[in-house]
Amino acid sequence: MTVTDDVLATLAAALPQGCLVTDPDILVSYRQDWARDPDAVLPLAVARPTTTEEVQVVMRWATEHRVPVIPRGAGSGLSGGATAVAGCVVVSTERMRRIEVDPVTRIAVVEPGLLNAEVKAAAAEHGLWYPPDPSSFEMCSIGGNVATNAGGLCCVKYGVTTDYVLALRVVLADGTDVRLGGPRLKDVAGLSLTKLFVGSEGTLGIVTEATLRLIPAQPPSSTLVASFASVQAAADTVLAITRTLRPSMLEFMDRTSIGAVEDALKMGLDRTAEAMLIARSDAPGAIAAEEISVMADACTASGASEVFTTDDPDEGEAFAAARRFAIPAVERLGSLLLEDVGVPLPKLPALVEGIAAISRERDVMVAVIAHAGDGNTHPLIVFDPEDAAMAERAHLAFGEIMDLALSLGGTITGEHGVGRLKKAWLPDQLGEDVMELTQRIKNALDPLGILNPGAIL
Amino acid sequence: MTVTDDVLATLAAALPQGCLVTDPDILVSYRQDWARDPDAVLPLAVARPTTTEEVQVVMRWATEHRVPVIPRGAGSGLSGGATAVAGCVVVSTERMRRIEVDPVTRIAVVEPGLLNAEVKAAAAEHGLWYPPDPSSFEMCSIGGNVATNAGGLCCVKYGVTTDYVLALRVVLADGTDVRLGGPRLKDVAGLSLTKLFVGSEGTLGIVTEATLRLIPAQPPSSTLVASFASVQAAADTVLAITRTLRPSMLEFMDRTSIGAVEDALKMGLDRTAEAMLIARSDAPGAIAAEEISVMADACTASGASEVFTTDDPDEGEAFAAARRFAIPAVERLGSLLLEDVGVPLPKLPALVEGIAAISRERDVMVAVIAHAGDGNTHPLIVFDPEDAAMAERAHLAFGEIMDLALSLGGTITGEHGVGRLKKAWLPDQLGEDVMELTQRIKNALDPLGILNPGAIL
Repeated sequence: MTVTDDVLATLAAALPQGCLVTDPDILVSYRQDWARDPDAVLPLAVARPTTTEEVQVVMRWATEHRVPVIPRGAGSGLSGGATAVAGCVVVSTERMRRIEVDPVTRIAVVEPGLLNAEVKAAAAEHGLWYPPDPSSFEMCSIGGNVATNAGGLCCVKYGVTTDYVLALRVVLADGTDVRLGGPRLKDVAGLSLTKLFVGSEGTLGIVTEATLRLIPAQPPSSTLVASFASVQAAADTVLAITRTLRPSMLEFMDRTSIGAVEDALKMGLDRTAEAMLIARSDAPGAIAAEEISVMADACTASGASEVFTTDDPDEGEAFAAARRFAIPAVERLGSLLLEDVGVPLPKLPALVEGIAAISRERDVMVAVIAHAGDGNTHPLIVFDPEDAAMAERAHLAFGEIMDLALSLGGTITGEHGVGRLKKAWLPDQLGEDVMELTQRIKNALDPLGILNPGAIL
Repeated sequence: MTVTDDVLATLAAALPQGCLVTDPDILVSYRQDWARDPDAVLPLAVARPTTTEEVQVVMRWATEHRVPVIPRGAGSGLSGGATAVAGCVVVSTERMRRIEVDPVTRIAVVEPGLLNAEVKAAAAEHGLWYPPDPSSFEMCSIGGNVATNAGGLCCVKYGVTTDYVLALRVVLADGTDVRLGGPRLKDVAGLSLTKLFVGSEGTLGIVTEATLRLIPAQPPSSTLVASFASVQAAADTVLAITRTLRPSMLEFMDRTSIGAVEDALKMGLDRTAEAMLIARSDAPGAIAAEEISVMADACTASGASEVFTTDDPDEGEAFAAARRFAIPAVERLGSLLLEDVGVPLPKLPALVEGIAAISRERDVMVAVIAHAGDGNTHPLIVFDPEDAAMAERAHLAFGEIMDLALSLGGTITGEHGVGRLKKAWLPDQLGEDVMELTQRIKNALDPLGILNPGAIL
């Protein structure tokens, strides 16, 4: 049904002044997230609630009038999970920014609008640490992290978002406010509903509060950077390392991304290398040096052309920052289609080689960076949007890379989510029965289908 | 509906010879699990399938004839999750025992009938480790571990079962065979269905295969044992320790359990202590000694009466084994009602004190052991089943301990599951809305309500 101005006015009236925005000049910045979904349209309105109760008001109204609602965090999503659809209201959690750290229970109770970096900073004030660290941690919100079950660089040792979510407060499609889980480190009372909502991309409810587990502060890290003449040699090294120890970071960059980062940062990376690994150890005391030494030996055994190590945390952080800068650096070369495919670890070389083949066949540049220790890669497909033929080839490559990952027993998305851009490939991964199972759960929780319609399903 | 012998015969005929057992002498041992639910009845039959397809045959038949099915692992459950109900067929997974370890991908693909200890042993052959370690690890099955999201002693550092389940193969109520997740370390494609099934206690499906994440072998552990003149002093120590480092074990025993274990094992434990902590560090190399030293200082600062440390792994293992032996040791004193309540860490002293008060008021012995670092306690209520008045007082205490945990912001079950014995308390913990949400998911996945009816809901 189409929402009339009168109906929209009832929502505006039910919310505090200024909560509901209908100014088209403002709405335009809520059309889409970083995935820049070409199908995005102007939403009817954007609600910017500051409390759970205001989110409930929106959802009750949306249920009554069957209005699609698009939950939105910081808008840094890369799969089109926050694309505005026709006739929708966007619910932006950007103004829900309360946080309370309880250092004795070692938890942070946070509202979804906090940035990941702000949660880390608040924990650090108490000598504690919230590990999950998407490369975008300075601009992505914790609500979005929960919605996508976000990963990051330290996940290879410390796990992903779901491993740190003890409890959630969620507003369901009909406006019901439920509290799932609690500040208990172990809790098996009832179904694992907290975990079901983590990663549900706003299709089952809107998270208005999360209780996050914190751990003692991370010790200073030692860092290794190694260059390789082949992708295979780097991938072999990854397998050798992960079998013997647990690095706190194990990242991969290919020749294209090394060059792009070096162009931007001029830090002396080896442009002639086909692959580079950045590995870190945060083992305490002298053990970090031992772990770095074991990893350096693994690099040398696989024929690394250069191995550099440092126990200076700042110097090491510069290399981690270089890796995190890879996406913006490659983006200078053109528009990006950002992939997020993962494979079982031993298939990593086959994936990277297959991507290179697709790049050649489709004649588009594909830079590859990877959370190598997790088998999770981010092929960055570079194209000129003014060149329609190239853009089409880029989109074909985008699909072919997912097909390739699936053929290797992999996943179409390791940490960004399915959103709208990848949902055409989801049935190929999950199969008909699991899609049907997913739909049954969606129907049970959102029978009118008003929560983020078109995402995932 | 009541199942006639003819209908049961159709199931027997559809399964391989010997798969379906109806001999009452055999059935009697499938009536109940270790919770010894007094409401248990003789099942109609027990199916002991060896393949997923045989489980599908049972579920299709059960759907057609609306027969309740009770999934059963090793029968070591402590909440009555496998209690046989009237007119049911028990599906025991004990004969599904295939395992394949892939050391390069660092996974084990296991069938549910394997014991936890067998999975650990198979991983160890490749220098790898499956961490979750319920005290019953030598007799509990991995299928049961998945069904209850089992915990254990090393979980304080390494997490619980759900943290290690990458994929599941599940037979749904209607016999559909679905594969959820896969051998990818990061995977956010679609809803977190794998995590929904972990801990669902057989109410949503029957797990016929699990893909488990393995990590490099645990380094040898150093161990600390400390005695305290008060529970509060021990609890203070737990908070001091967990705020600064991550021990690989942090266990608590009260005076009663110390005495019971000492009676049985005669290893020189301090019977006069009100509380004992057993802590371990598996940090590599010299760091273990450092961590043990930090923990010893914390014990001393809290006024520990005795602190013993050892870097001999066997000597340390003897103390861990003593802790694991606490339940059998206390069981020598009478019948047990086994609790599993957890609280936010700072509430641990209040919980232990409150339990002592309930013990005094109800005049029943309650021994308390705890995975202290997780705030997860196991009060063991000891009673003489021949003494009806005492048995009644014990059951009252059982409920009061859960009420106490809830009043402290805790959970009625940290790692054993709700099963049937605790479900009366579940609404008090979850609230009406979350119970309704749970029921909606149950209805969506098991519309006829044939999977483990009466468990959880």
